[in-house]
Amino acid sequence: MIKAGIIGATGYAGNEIVRLLMNHPEAEVVWYGSRSYTGQPYADIYRNFFRLVEADCLDDNMEELSREADVIFTATPQGLCASLVSEEILSRSKIIDLSADFRIKDVKKYEEWYGIEHKAPQFVEEAVYGLCEINREQIRGARLVANPGCYPTCSTLSIYPFIKEGIIDPSTVIIDAKSGTSGAGRSAKVDNLFCEVNENIKAYGVASHRHTPEIEDQLGYACGREIRLSFTPHLVPMNRGILVTAYASLTRPVTDGELRELLHSYYDKETFIRVLKENECPQTRFVEGSNYVDVNFKIDSRTHRLIMMGAIDNLVKGAAGQAVQNMNLMFGLAEDTGLKIVPAIP
Amino acid sequence: MIKAGIIGATGYAGNEIVRLLMNHPEAEVVWYGSRSYTGQPYADIYRNFFRLVEADCLDDNMEELSREADVIFTATPQGLCASLVSEEILSRSKIIDLSADFRIKDVKKYEEWYGIEHKAPQFVEEAVYGLCEINREQIRGARLVANPGCYPTCSTLSIYPFIKEGIIDPSTVIIDAKSGTSGAGRSAKVDNLFCEVNENIKAYGVASHRHTPEIEDQLGYACGREIRLSFTPHLVPMNRGILVTAYASLTRPVTDGELRELLHSYYDKETFIRVLKENECPQTRFVEGSNYVDVNFKIDSRTHRLIMMGAIDNLVKGAAGQAVQNMNLMFGLAEDTGLKIVPAIP
Amino acid sequence: MIKAGIIGATGYAGNEIVRLLMNHPEAEVVWYGSRSYTGQPYADIYRNFFRLVEADCLDDNMEELSREADVIFTATPQGLCASLVSEEILSRSKIIDLSADFRIKDVKKYEEWYGIEHKAPQFVEEAVYGLCEINREQIRGARLVANPGCYPTCSTLSIYPFIKEGIIDPSTVIIDAKSGTSGAGRSAKVDNLFCEVNENIKAYGVASHRHTPEIEDQLGYACGREIRLSFTPHLVPMNRGILVTAYASLTRPVTDGELRELLHSYYDKETFIRVLKENECPQTRFVEGSNYVDVNFKIDSRTHRLIMMGAIDNLVKGAAGQAVQNMNLMFGLAEDTGLKIVPAIP
Amino acid sequence: MIKAGIIGATGYAGNEIVRLLMNHPEAEVVWYGSRSYTGQPYADIYRNFFRLVEADCLDDNMEELSREADVIFTATPQGLCASLVSEEILSRSKIIDLSADFRIKDVKKYEEWYGIEHKAPQFVEEAVYGLCEINREQIRGARLVANPGCYPTCSTLSIYPFIKEGIIDPSTVIIDAKSGTSGAGRSAKVDNLFCEVNENIKAYGVASHRHTPEIEDQLGYACGREIRLSFTPHLVPMNRGILVTAYASLTRPVTDGELRELLHSYYDKETFIRVLKENECPQTRFVEGSNYVDVNFKIDSRTHRLIMMGAIDNLVKGAAGQAVQNMNLMFGLAEDTGLKIVPAIP
Repeated sequence: MIKAGIIGATGYAGNEIVRLLMNHPEAEVVWYGSRSYTGQPYADIYRNFFRLVEADCLDDNMEELSREADVIFTATPQGLCASLVSEEILSRSKIIDLSADFRIKDVKKYEEWYGIEHKAPQFVEEAVYGLCEINREQIRGARLVANPGCYPTCSTLSIYPFIKEGIIDPSTVIIDAKSGTSGAGRSAKVDNLFCEVNENIKAYGVASHRHTPEIEDQLGYACGREIRLSFTPHLVPMNRGILVTAYASLTRPVTDGELRELLHSYYDKETFIRVLKENECPQTRFVEGSNYVDVNFKIDSRTHRLIMMGAIDNLVKGAAGQAVQNMNLMFGLAEDTGLKIVPAIP
Repeated sequence: MIKAGIIGATGYAGNEIVRLLMNHPEAEVVWYGSRSYTGQPYADIYRNFFRLVEADCLDDNMEELSREADVIFTATPQGLCASLVSEEILSRSKIIDLSADFRIKDVKKYEEWYGIEHKAPQFVEEAVYGLCEINREQIRGARLVANPGCYPTCSTLSIYPFIKEGIIDPSTVIIDAKSGTSGAGRSAKVDNLFCEVNENIKAYGVASHRHTPEIEDQLGYACGREIRLSFTPHLVPMNRGILVTAYASLTRPVTDGELRELLHSYYDKETFIRVLKENECPQTRFVEGSNYVDVNFKIDSRTHRLIMMGAIDNLVKGAAGQAVQNMNLMFGLAEDTGLKIVPAIP
Repeated sequence: MIKAGIIGATGYAGNEIVRLLMNHPEAEVVWYGSRSYTGQPYADIYRNFFRLVEADCLDDNMEELSREADVIFTATPQGLCASLVSEEILSRSKIIDLSADFRIKDVKKYEEWYGIEHKAPQFVEEAVYGLCEINREQIRGARLVANPGCYPTCSTLSIYPFIKEGIIDPSTVIIDAKSGTSGAGRSAKVDNLFCEVNENIKAYGVASHRHTPEIEDQLGYACGREIRLSFTPHLVPMNRGILVTAYASLTRPVTDGELRELLHSYYDKETFIRVLKENECPQTRFVEGSNYVDVNFKIDSRTHRLIMMGAIDNLVKGAAGQAVQNMNLMFGLAEDTGLKIVPAIP
Repeated sequence: MIKAGIIGATGYAGNEIVRLLMNHPEAEVVWYGSRSYTGQPYADIYRNFFRLVEADCLDDNMEELSREADVIFTATPQGLCASLVSEEILSRSKIIDLSADFRIKDVKKYEEWYGIEHKAPQFVEEAVYGLCEINREQIRGARLVANPGCYPTCSTLSIYPFIKEGIIDPSTVIIDAKSGTSGAGRSAKVDNLFCEVNENIKAYGVASHRHTPEIEDQLGYACGREIRLSFTPHLVPMNRGILVTAYASLTRPVTDGELRELLHSYYDKETFIRVLKENECPQTRFVEGSNYVDVNFKIDSRTHRLIMMGAIDNLVKGAAGQAVQNMNLMFGLAEDTGLKIVPAIP
């Protein structure tokens, strides 16, 4: 039985890790870390776990936690994991960091976009970017996994095969993304109040969102050169879900059949990626609660562009689910252990 | 492996049975019946099942279905199950009817409230009302189970211990219930359009809703006499969930501690009923997707009334989940087989 | 031109007063008071007013404000108005207090339910309870109006004619109310975050909500004796709207026609109360944005109860609209000046 | 007093015309046309109009209607207006057509995108495209106005100054649009049920939506040549609002100040267009219920692109409000007559 500790267990992503691990046959949570609620029963914060979780919240002492846990999930704001990690801790526990601390290989770029000093640059190179479908083998051997951001997960998987195969011009990529409100976290801010979010849609972080360099890095690796792209996130009045609509110019004439075959050749072996049928558009509700990524594309022959689409549940494949998927790989389990969740609608 | 057939598999309740049985280790769906979509791939109607369900929709030939299935779920409008059931069918398959056809023992009462002739009155007496927590033993031996309505499930379980123990005056019971919109079904009606339901709340079926006699029957059995109560359902702009707030006059002075002990004595052995702590109110989100019933009460000492509250997911404990719970009992399985679902929030 | 000052202009009720006064031909806002945003442009907080309001937020100096304004609206938490009001201020400006400070005539009762000391008990008797349809004449001459609470407005108007005429037994009144989330205000609390409110319904303040004594007072005045009733509010995932479903036992056999005539006799002369047709249920969407109260009733002949229903927009008739209606009366204007708003749907 | 007739008065756009004209000092509705509800009281369909509209629904006899009305609004599906209009009718009444029949000057293009034969090509040239801010002078003299589509209104006004001034490369324009569900109309379709739309976002009509040629035409006129662009609409779980996020490559280095000045020079004289401040993103809630268009832009200097944003209420500026604005121009009234609506939030 894998013993798992969670730092940030009372955030939405932390709460989702708890849910997933409760259904996991090979893992159990031994540490519900929450700085805000230390000492309180975990199920008092999340009543969905009433009678299911008896434990109290603990603090975020990663040092002590590493003596009790085989794996540590850090579902915390940027900077915390980097400030706590050490060789000693890593020698005892594997770490899956849901923050951005170890996602970007260029420390200077990280510091510019995030506006903070990196406290553990010595581990950046070792850290593996945990996008399982792409870095599966490196993840298996990793001690420290940088769990991808929600937008980068959906964006990269929607675009990856096409940019890697040279179907689209990397300099023309535009990603218009839409997210449910759980992506904004559980802290008490006026902007996230029901009455401010409901019956509204807005863009935010235009031309400046921190997930931009992360997506650029991943797609840059895919096409073998540095790229710059436009990324615009939007806030949608729903709890969960990310939808990506991405645009790029085609490098040559293509047919739907040709690209469909390409996409299937990349993804048919993947448990969690579903290539929809021609003319179908991904919908976030059809992946809600699950680790699936639904992808598709449409050729806009009038403008010689390719429109690539993907949908995920931001809290599952975009956070906790992918973290568990990474854990499974790191511990030699079947990748879908504990993740065979059928999406529920409505 | 139990072979299950579903008539009405493309309604919201039918779809939920499919989801639950996919996670059930001892049962599988062999017949996805849908009059509207016969011949179409089931997963084309419900894209959440893409790559998970390969079967096509079949018709509602219960006769033929009974030759292939050990159990038949009828998730259809009133009247259909009664018009199809026969001794021959029941000799081959068990039936769990999610409609109201066999819930009310007094056929005349059924016909008055539902406005249709009962086509199979000969099976009414045999049918067992499938409220597992109350009729567990009879359900185990049943061939035909009348799966309770969503409102009656939540209402009855919220009130049962208090009315049975004579704590409240049966003639004073008022039930004010609130339901998510999936309870209204998936048929194309203007009243159920997004723009008609969203940003709105309304009562409906005031003093005339068909679930009234069903609740009266069950609570009447509990207190040993016929009762009349007021039941008012409301439509809430959310997908899932039923919340019941019920009022009744106390028959004598009581303390919170005394009633709390009573409630625990009834429900602590129940896997799916959670008695919340003092002063906590049930919230539908904390049971969403699960088979739980969260209940609590509050003594209004100023008015000498008891306020009883309960929350369920109308599609799970209020329909498909309870149906599977009934199936488990009827086939000698552990009652929670396939139903150990942790509610997900947000 | 009436000069109006608002203390608490950046709350949802304050914001709604601004909106209504912008359409008011005889009044203008001269003071946008906001302790939290003093010095900032008002339209920076509420972008709906961009290019429509140029003023900056001012503080809550009621003394100074009273030198500039003919009327002061206090849309602030309990206790503030009482702590600021003085004879000197009242000699210069009329005050319409949207808090509870002057709604309850029994100061001790106020202090018990609200848990604070009343700072201006000397004005309690003078203050007029601003439920225009009932206290119209006293309001005309008032210096200080206690603007009714949202729940009490909807509850009282739904029940008033029946309790006053002795149709229902006052000791049996149960009010089950449902409110949109704007009623919870605009302060940054986890409980009011989008992801905590959306896809959920819950009761709160069961048997203890502060609007209870206010409703009891008003209905008690109507029937001529002190009463105790049950009042349960619920939080609904929508921005605006209150729906009241109230229950009471009939004192004698009645017909729908008889009660309908009674209701019309009370309300047909009222601009803002609409008696719906038989069998229609009020819906909050049909009054949204307007000052209307839609009411109706249903006789439950099986239980000898009367079910009374009402719907308002909590921010309009339940707060800002009624405040403007009171202002109109206090300044001798036509009662509906600036309030002829047609509800918009969807 | 202008006498107005509405064909399609029971759709969401028709209902909104009624609401706006009720507040219009110079116009009144004399004909509530509704094929589905002919003979029923109009306010029975829309309870918001209870006690405000007494009239019954009439049929869609445009011939007869033109004898009673000075202006006819056709808020109907494509094809109807073209099939009814005649020289005789136009000689008696002005027509404002909210369908697409007269928006596209190239009849063949219309027939290809809409898949129907144009029944009145002889009026296409005469018809004026009613985007008031751009075609104001022609509208004043028009008998037949083609009221712009919702997406084209928001898209065109967001992009117009930049494409006209050569700031952006017309061949690179990509429009990613998001709409509330009222845009899908009020017909009873499963896809528009609450439970299918709520908690979901999806793209639809990818690379094939009928508003594409309309936007291309308008932006083509602006830049003086035919253009092809990508347009992708999305369905958002909210009632009202369209948000446009548009992308295009800059033709030369620019500064925010320079473009801001440009935008102000185009729009500062416009009553209904509000240029937000630097770094602010338009939000649909801030224009809800009003005729405003909130626009802004952001230079993405890393990718040399301009990101242009706009928000409207699809039922007001995107349909009924613009129609009334057109009516005002056609009848020589001040353009904002009856349209001085302050957006209400939340």
